[in-house]
Amino acid sequence: MTYTLYGYHASDNCYKIKLLLNQLEIPFHYKEVDIVKGESRTEEFLPQVNPVGCIPVLAISSTATLTESNAILIYLAEDTPFLPKEKFKRAQVFQWLFFEQYKHEPNIATLRFWQKCLNRKKTDKQWKDKMEEKFTNGEEALRIMNDHLMNNAYFVGNSYTIADICLYAYTHKAHEAGFNLNSYPHILQWFKRIEKQDNYVKFE
Amino acid sequence: MTYTLYGYHASDNCYKIKLLLNQLEIPFHYKEVDIVKGESRTEEFLPQVNPVGCIPVLAISSTATLTESNAILIYLAEDTPFLPKEKFKRAQVFQWLFFEQYKHEPNIATLRFWQKCLNRKKTDKQWKDKMEEKFTNGEEALRIMNDHLMNNAYFVGNSYTIADICLYAYTHKAHEAGFNLNSYPHILQWFKRIEKQDNYVKFE
Repeated sequence: MTYTLYGYHASDNCYKIKLLLNQLEIPFHYKEVDIVKGESRTEEFLPQVNPVGCIPVLAISSTATLTESNAILIYLAEDTPFLPKEKFKRAQVFQWLFFEQYKHEPNIATLRFWQKCLNRKKTDKQWKDKMEEKFTNGEEALRIMNDHLMNNAYFVGNSYTIADICLYAYTHKAHEAGFNLNSYPHILQWFKRIEKQDNYVKFE
Repeated sequence: MTYTLYGYHASDNCYKIKLLLNQLEIPFHYKEVDIVKGESRTEEFLPQVNPVGCIPVLAISSTATLTESNAILIYLAEDTPFLPKEKFKRAQVFQWLFFEQYKHEPNIATLRFWQKCLNRKKTDKQWKDKMEEKFTNGEEALRIMNDHLMNNAYFVGNSYTIADICLYAYTHKAHEAGFNLNSYPHILQWFKRIEKQDNYVKFE
């Protein structure tokens, strides 16, 4: 069965999956779910597609679906060059995937979503403190990435893996969340290496 | 080499690792790092043990360390009954590990840490809104778990895996974060199944 990806056009958690599927040359169907209009919380979506009410969702068969963008990346990358076979290197990939969902995405992606999709502004008294906190935490995540890339071409084992795909997703859109990436030169150089990979596709 | 676990006594992210190591009957050294006193941000800890400045850290050799509690769980559980071999079941385990770090731990664990370790109170005007937001999100995570356990003895494939260990950690301490677990009877029944597992150890 051909995979179906349920996603939202402005979500880089969905873009990660699209990029990997393209680089693996796996064809897939795509269904847009407008999360801003609440389409991930409807009676059709919730019980059948994802009881947690989030996108992306990868439908593998008519009865089997997977959620959590980084779990989907691991599922698709297994037995491909995008996920090393050696045990410690695999663990390092997983380490960066959890780092991304804990320290990076909740700050940088959320800040971008608030501004780009919900039109919240730092000048609104109601949002100021929350946005500043996310900005500080996002800067810390970018600093950790930049420091690592000072001595490494990629995140794990000197080759391009799902750790890079996962971290590239929201980092390459961080300027839309208000971050100045010129402060992180090693990240900018890493972008260039990623964008030269075979079957690289831009965010639409 | 014997593993060394760097942890903090009140952290259930560390308890997860201790529980799995005990159930795998793997001996290990333990080093306490007092995060409240800033010991995870010192010049000795940061560059050598973990540049991200978090615990737990598992030192595998004198030069190799792993961070992110759930990445450590995967590393230790590979090729054991705690992580299925079948590809889709493995992906479902990873899905719950990411759910825990994204929707569960940042709400339930943080709320517990604020109250238990930093002595913050809901009655403080400064913390009220933040604590209420985390409480609402924590309740949503517990509801999703309880719904899943209504028809499943464990989180994946009807057997005890690292998905259960990972979610048990902060859930069985959720009352210390102000949650009333009597509202989640399927979670309470699942606790009993976990606590009967071979080599189960309580949180110290």
